[in-house]
Amino acid sequence: MKNGWGDRTLKPDFSKYPDNLVPTIVVDSQTNQVLMMAYVNEESYQRSLKTRQTWFWSRSRQELWHKGETSGNTQKIVSMAIDCDEDTLLMRVIPAGPACHTGHTSCFYRNVLEEEKDNG
Amino acid sequence: MKNGWGDRTLKPDFSKYPDNLVPTIVVDSQTNQVLMMAYVNEESYQRSLKTRQTWFWSRSRQELWHKGETSGNTQKIVSMAIDCDEDTLLMRVIPAGPACHTGHTSCFYRNVLEEEKDNG
Repeated sequence: MKNGWGDRTLKPDFSKYPDNLVPTIVVDSQTNQVLMMAYVNEESYQRSLKTRQTWFWSRSRQELWHKGETSGNTQKIVSMAIDCDEDTLLMRVIPAGPACHTGHTSCFYRNVLEEEKDNG
Repeated sequence: MKNGWGDRTLKPDFSKYPDNLVPTIVVDSQTNQVLMMAYVNEESYQRSLKTRQTWFWSRSRQELWHKGETSGNTQKIVSMAIDCDEDTLLMRVIPAGPACHTGHTSCFYRNVLEEEKDNG
């Protein structure tokens, strides 16, 4: 390892998905909070590596998506990890603002199952 | 909200995916570490809610997968969140052991991009 790169022989296996999009988890590097999940194709992955800002593929708009380009809430990539079977990415970032378009820090701001309370 | 449930009107929109599988991020509820990413179909989602243990759909084996059934490394679900557009889940768990089949605590044990060091 050198020059701030990790193991460059590792890269996501885009071919594992019919649409060649690899799910990417984005975490706040300072709080460890999960901020969002999005998808990268080969080009947005390469742009993320080179610019150290998060780039995704927008499935709804079917276009490259530089996170924060319109909102200003860019995400600076501190480090990036890949999972054991090389089909999921984890980006640790410093966010310039809320990750969610609703204004919430994280897109996961609603629970479908709450913590159990002790009723005893 | 009652009986430990969150908002029951919320549920993942399985129809957003051609294979009806919703990506699910699993986080250690105590350390906030991202442990793994897996997929739920409707049945594994319902089983996860009811049993408060993680159930997924194994894409490689094409079968329901009770995490830890063979390894013993089950994951007790503390709470579960859904994202803003209701197509990704986040399960906060207490793991009985390593999440990864390699023996690592987390499946994300390798970096493709390291933290930048100050060379100044």
